[in-house]
Amino acid sequence: MLKRLLAETIGTFWLVLGGCGSAVLAANFGGDGNPLGIGLLGVSLAFGLTVLTGAFALGHISGGHFNPAVSAGLWAGGRFPAKELIPYWVAQTLGAVLAGFVLWQIAHGRADLVIDPSAAGVFATNGYGGMSPGGYSMTAALLCELVMTGMFLVVIMGATDPKAPAGFAPIAIGLALTLIHLISIPVTNTSVNPARSTGVALFVGGQPLQQLWFFWVVPILGGILGGGLYRWLRRPE
Amino acid sequence: MLKRLLAETIGTFWLVLGGCGSAVLAANFGGDGNPLGIGLLGVSLAFGLTVLTGAFALGHISGGHFNPAVSAGLWAGGRFPAKELIPYWVAQTLGAVLAGFVLWQIAHGRADLVIDPSAAGVFATNGYGGMSPGGYSMTAALLCELVMTGMFLVVIMGATDPKAPAGFAPIAIGLALTLIHLISIPVTNTSVNPARSTGVALFVGGQPLQQLWFFWVVPILGGILGGGLYRWLRRPE
Amino acid sequence: MLKRLLAETIGTFWLVLGGCGSAVLAANFGGDGNPLGIGLLGVSLAFGLTVLTGAFALGHISGGHFNPAVSAGLWAGGRFPAKELIPYWVAQTLGAVLAGFVLWQIAHGRADLVIDPSAAGVFATNGYGGMSPGGYSMTAALLCELVMTGMFLVVIMGATDPKAPAGFAPIAIGLALTLIHLISIPVTNTSVNPARSTGVALFVGGQPLQQLWFFWVVPILGGILGGGLYRWLRRPE
Amino acid sequence: MLKRLLAETIGTFWLVLGGCGSAVLAANFGGDGNPLGIGLLGVSLAFGLTVLTGAFALGHISGGHFNPAVSAGLWAGGRFPAKELIPYWVAQTLGAVLAGFVLWQIAHGRADLVIDPSAAGVFATNGYGGMSPGGYSMTAALLCELVMTGMFLVVIMGATDPKAPAGFAPIAIGLALTLIHLISIPVTNTSVNPARSTGVALFVGGQPLQQLWFFWVVPILGGILGGGLYRWLRRPE
Repeated sequence: MLKRLLAETIGTFWLVLGGCGSAVLAANFGGDGNPLGIGLLGVSLAFGLTVLTGAFALGHISGGHFNPAVSAGLWAGGRFPAKELIPYWVAQTLGAVLAGFVLWQIAHGRADLVIDPSAAGVFATNGYGGMSPGGYSMTAALLCELVMTGMFLVVIMGATDPKAPAGFAPIAIGLALTLIHLISIPVTNTSVNPARSTGVALFVGGQPLQQLWFFWVVPILGGILGGGLYRWLRRPE
Repeated sequence: MLKRLLAETIGTFWLVLGGCGSAVLAANFGGDGNPLGIGLLGVSLAFGLTVLTGAFALGHISGGHFNPAVSAGLWAGGRFPAKELIPYWVAQTLGAVLAGFVLWQIAHGRADLVIDPSAAGVFATNGYGGMSPGGYSMTAALLCELVMTGMFLVVIMGATDPKAPAGFAPIAIGLALTLIHLISIPVTNTSVNPARSTGVALFVGGQPLQQLWFFWVVPILGGILGGGLYRWLRRPE
Repeated sequence: MLKRLLAETIGTFWLVLGGCGSAVLAANFGGDGNPLGIGLLGVSLAFGLTVLTGAFALGHISGGHFNPAVSAGLWAGGRFPAKELIPYWVAQTLGAVLAGFVLWQIAHGRADLVIDPSAAGVFATNGYGGMSPGGYSMTAALLCELVMTGMFLVVIMGATDPKAPAGFAPIAIGLALTLIHLISIPVTNTSVNPARSTGVALFVGGQPLQQLWFFWVVPILGGILGGGLYRWLRRPE
Repeated sequence: MLKRLLAETIGTFWLVLGGCGSAVLAANFGGDGNPLGIGLLGVSLAFGLTVLTGAFALGHISGGHFNPAVSAGLWAGGRFPAKELIPYWVAQTLGAVLAGFVLWQIAHGRADLVIDPSAAGVFATNGYGGMSPGGYSMTAALLCELVMTGMFLVVIMGATDPKAPAGFAPIAIGLALTLIHLISIPVTNTSVNPARSTGVALFVGGQPLQQLWFFWVVPILGGILGGGLYRWLRRPE
């Protein structure tokens, strides 16, 4: 069990360091309007590749959740025991916070770094309303995170179904996370993962920390709905 | 049968929400000329990843068409029974319209949203002539959608051929849709999928709705030609 | 044999229509400086995906060369009979020219299209010296096309080696073509494929047509060197 | 053994030619601010694809390290014999220097080429402090290269674990290198590979050559830590 938890910690560390790291360090490289930066497309790819690579490397140890909403959704889908939920959540959150700490250290190696807690999306934090990168309302953010996490779980449950082609699940799941970011970064900076939101919000404080509850409640609810939907779709008749 | 139809509804919902959603919400993020947005490349990737992920997740339930032109082409290719065409088309269109509705709600969570039904490509709608993103004629649009849907079916038929490597079809088919968008977004905003065109045109009305017949007739015809071509190529001699 | 040749024609048609089509129609969408266009990155991805999708769909029929330099390299590598070289080259060139014709028709559906035969890279043609997109000399173009086609053949020979993982070759080979374009579009607009060069040069005429011999001689020579190198590397000792 | 070393030379040649070549020739195509260039996203993809394609093509001959830090990390992970470390390192460095030479020749085929040894990232060299593309300190560079190489080895060890899905390792490992570049190009221009750093620094001289020791010591140390961490994670209990 300890090894499985450690694998979740390492994998979530990689997810947050890679996804949020690409956003903080490389998205806007060269300054506003410079096309050298990787932009939202590069950040979307980075988030997906953390899961693709992490799941190939560690999935055979822990299942490769790296996300409290995924663990919750797999429980709702009948694939994960309730009693392991809290340990997994703790291990995932630890990894995310460790990644936030490392990223904070690297980012501060640049003399002219500015962290403004009132700026939407600062240090890759998630937010709605005034903290939404594109200025989307709390209702739009709620609908978006709910549907995105729900469909994420449908893909996860389906791609790991015994009837799906074996071995390809990390590709399907990783690229689903890329897709989700391609759609929804402007809305909430894309969470669908409470640990990822926590790992960066803790270091920024302010508004991102005050809105953090939202990115625990909504993705977990969405994950449960998605996991339940797929389970119902595949119930024996 | 009900489960298969529901899988088609969910998959087409995902295709339209992801593909059109990335176009509406993220393609032009930050405004004209801002390289942070995902652009046509990001939208192309998003469309392809909806099919890649949806086919890995749901293909083992329904075959993973998510597209009336694909169902028609597979019928022409001898892989799908005629009597299931109409139910599949209905299920796919329902999913697409549901996605259009959800995307409409999310997009309106931004106070400064403008939907102008006379603008080419508005709300990710398809069009030709004055409604073509790059100003391409109806003839060019006809040729383009016909050839693109035809080749899409050749790839689908070929990649799911018993002689092709097993398990890889969702990758080949999803990335074929990415490729098709990389080529043809400027011409028609890329349909090759009548349900996808319907799901967004219904909410915009105006010109996009008046041109909608074109994006049922041409992709279905192209799909039938492509499915038939591959069938002929592989006929026993 | 006829079916195999037809598969080569269809596959090369797809390669030229997709690769050159994305370059002509979408690379510079919106005009100079507009980041909505897919740029060199999108064109590189498109070329690779034509081969990835074409090889999954048609590779089990014809081997999926879609390129005279690949057929020549596989002959040098001991994997393809000399007597089939000419028929394959004819079939490939026919497909490429057909694609050039279709692309020409679609591109002319835009009223303000300008085709200037003296502009480097016009209509996705290949060139060196004054016709090199980045202004590279003939010597640099020679070295670049030689090494790129040579390494392309090393990847093709290696990824289809019985000792390589089965089924993955279309991914490795398609993405190798993407990689080659990511490096070398500025030098020659990237050929590594005489049929691809022919399919567009024929319609433009002028300088691109006068330089066409170069993009038959150099890629075929590079392919033979690469195929021979891999064969030597794997010779029994 | 000679064939294995030659495969490492060819693979590392491909890694440096492709990764550094895309950066030197195509990243900034068209000049500052031109979105046609492939940018940091395209360079990241190119580095990853060199490893993905090289490992599919040559991995079955030599293991496909193409990187002294990977060989060192696999030794620490119990997967590679100490006595082969030095031969592998020599073969890899030879391939990298050969690639630097070819790239140097191609790049000089452009009349207006400028190589300024005091410019951060010139000719794709790695650097910290004043030679960091984003102006990151030596401490940040140390932390970044250490963690990136460490996690690279975790992915490599995990994806080639007998319990991981067979055949997919080149995809996981190649895309991990893409991910690492998406994060860290602004910090050090991304090394995680002493041979890659050497292959270009030798031709530039000046500051990049003076900082070269750093990109041998830190990636190798990071690789050893990562290989050791995974070995410990999978130890029998």
